[in-house]
Amino acid sequence: MKVVVTGGAGFVGSNLTDSLVAAGFDVLVLDNFTTGFRRHLEPARLAGCEVVECDCYLEPDRLRELVAGADAIVHLAANADVRFGWDHARRDLEQNVVATHNVLEAARLAGVKRLLFSSTGSVYGECAVVPTPENAPFPVQTSLYGASKAAAEAYVAAYAEAGQCAATVFRFVSLLGPRYSHGHVIDFVRQLRADPDHLHILGDGLQRKSYLHVSDCVVAMMAALERTPRFEVLNLGLDEFCTVSDSAGWICGRLGVDPTITYSGGDRGWVGDNPFIYLDTKEIRATGWEPKFGLREAVEDTVEYLISNEWLLTQSEKSVS
Amino acid sequence: MKVVVTGGAGFVGSNLTDSLVAAGFDVLVLDNFTTGFRRHLEPARLAGCEVVECDCYLEPDRLRELVAGADAIVHLAANADVRFGWDHARRDLEQNVVATHNVLEAARLAGVKRLLFSSTGSVYGECAVVPTPENAPFPVQTSLYGASKAAAEAYVAAYAEAGQCAATVFRFVSLLGPRYSHGHVIDFVRQLRADPDHLHILGDGLQRKSYLHVSDCVVAMMAALERTPRFEVLNLGLDEFCTVSDSAGWICGRLGVDPTITYSGGDRGWVGDNPFIYLDTKEIRATGWEPKFGLREAVEDTVEYLISNEWLLTQSEKSVS
Repeated sequence: MKVVVTGGAGFVGSNLTDSLVAAGFDVLVLDNFTTGFRRHLEPARLAGCEVVECDCYLEPDRLRELVAGADAIVHLAANADVRFGWDHARRDLEQNVVATHNVLEAARLAGVKRLLFSSTGSVYGECAVVPTPENAPFPVQTSLYGASKAAAEAYVAAYAEAGQCAATVFRFVSLLGPRYSHGHVIDFVRQLRADPDHLHILGDGLQRKSYLHVSDCVVAMMAALERTPRFEVLNLGLDEFCTVSDSAGWICGRLGVDPTITYSGGDRGWVGDNPFIYLDTKEIRATGWEPKFGLREAVEDTVEYLISNEWLLTQSEKSVS
Repeated sequence: MKVVVTGGAGFVGSNLTDSLVAAGFDVLVLDNFTTGFRRHLEPARLAGCEVVECDCYLEPDRLRELVAGADAIVHLAANADVRFGWDHARRDLEQNVVATHNVLEAARLAGVKRLLFSSTGSVYGECAVVPTPENAPFPVQTSLYGASKAAAEAYVAAYAEAGQCAATVFRFVSLLGPRYSHGHVIDFVRQLRADPDHLHILGDGLQRKSYLHVSDCVVAMMAALERTPRFEVLNLGLDEFCTVSDSAGWICGRLGVDPTITYSGGDRGWVGDNPFIYLDTKEIRATGWEPKFGLREAVEDTVEYLISNEWLLTQSEKSVS
């Protein structure tokens, strides 16, 4: 079975690629390498995985040629910058909406009949129903990132419901674990390495979040490749949540520091930050999936990974022009 | 008060423009004239309305210049071809999603603080809840058109919720009345003029639909311009529905013909056709709005308009390249 993984050099993509290669799949990774890392793919390459530089937004025709002959596409390529959306108001539209449409068209025209798509719990906006199920009330988007994923999901559904391509949409909470390179854990670790006595937290620290370890996410995606639903949407997360301050405490504990903590204040870290993300995961659990990592373990494993991967910590965040 | 109407040469846009001009608004119409008609705007032009040819998808920079100084934008420009979406899979994406993003960016950068947006009941997909309220369960899109409007709505919400632009989204049923030029009524009237003895209906004729007269829609939009919600979504439709066969009967009655009717069969007219569209309109009624035209009157008034506007009936559907 041949699987194309877009965004395969990214955090989730490279973890999935390793699992697919290990399970004997024929894997082609496509990535534009704006936020992905070639070194994440070194183990997979050594095991025979093919890697091609391709931008799903800029190169629709090339995309069609590259996916030809695949049995499935796992479309993970995306701009995942929730916080700075307003600095680049068109980027999500291009990299998340138009790029997803290009992938869907490529699949349709090349006859690829199976698609997995990574969406986000952000598509629920600030839902009144918590834990939030897949059939929550019609959402109101509160961030450009959420809007772009909701828009992309809408297209995935239209293609799937028209019988063009069987599709599974995963709505993730934030993911943690090996190769994680973007979010509060790396921000905090960087701050504490620069100055172990001070930590500044955006918001009041009481924002309640749920995180999932990337390996639990990969297991769910591998299992989905064995199903062929017409269209399904599955939340992915843990049945527990913590505050940003809880997470800060675990990070400090793991680093052995005891900083003075300051807060920017307010009930959210930035415009569009959701003060309470907690997904109902009954649907995915009904498929037999069960997470192996708890919240605290996921945070601590991420800190562990970061301190043993100096190269990731010391480089500035990759520019995503 | 200055109002920019995108798609102002279209069916809804030109009716709204006439009402805005009559009410003393300073109106600027923008249209790319691919599906709109210059003659729809003749009365408004004579009364001082400015009309500029501009494509919201292709000309984002020009759009920004043109909306500068406006108090509100009514964004109606769109590709509204539900039935033939798959023949031009990218058109809705460009003309509905990217164009709406361009309008939102133009408003943000030019400081326009109020937006009205025309969406559709199609965003609910095939909702299990009928009549369908605004907070129906998270929708599953079943057509490219519905997906494009859901995507555009998501962006409107994100801009509104971030405080960039107060927005009202209207989800319409199909509209009928003067200047109507696209849909089952004109299809049936054209068929019956070509051959009064035969009428062919797509599907089994039992698809249940609700329609609204365009003048009732215009009244709702005029009233919305007097409100400044942060973000609101309002269904627009009648509290009644009919079958396509009912509507065919009223059309034949008005034309004085009694044709043999044949059906293509199946419970829907085409891929993505929704066999039952009926919106819950409690929300808009709570604002004081009430429709003046019933279903049958709306259908009959449309037939009346078409037979007194030979030019529209005899020309082939405008190409929308």
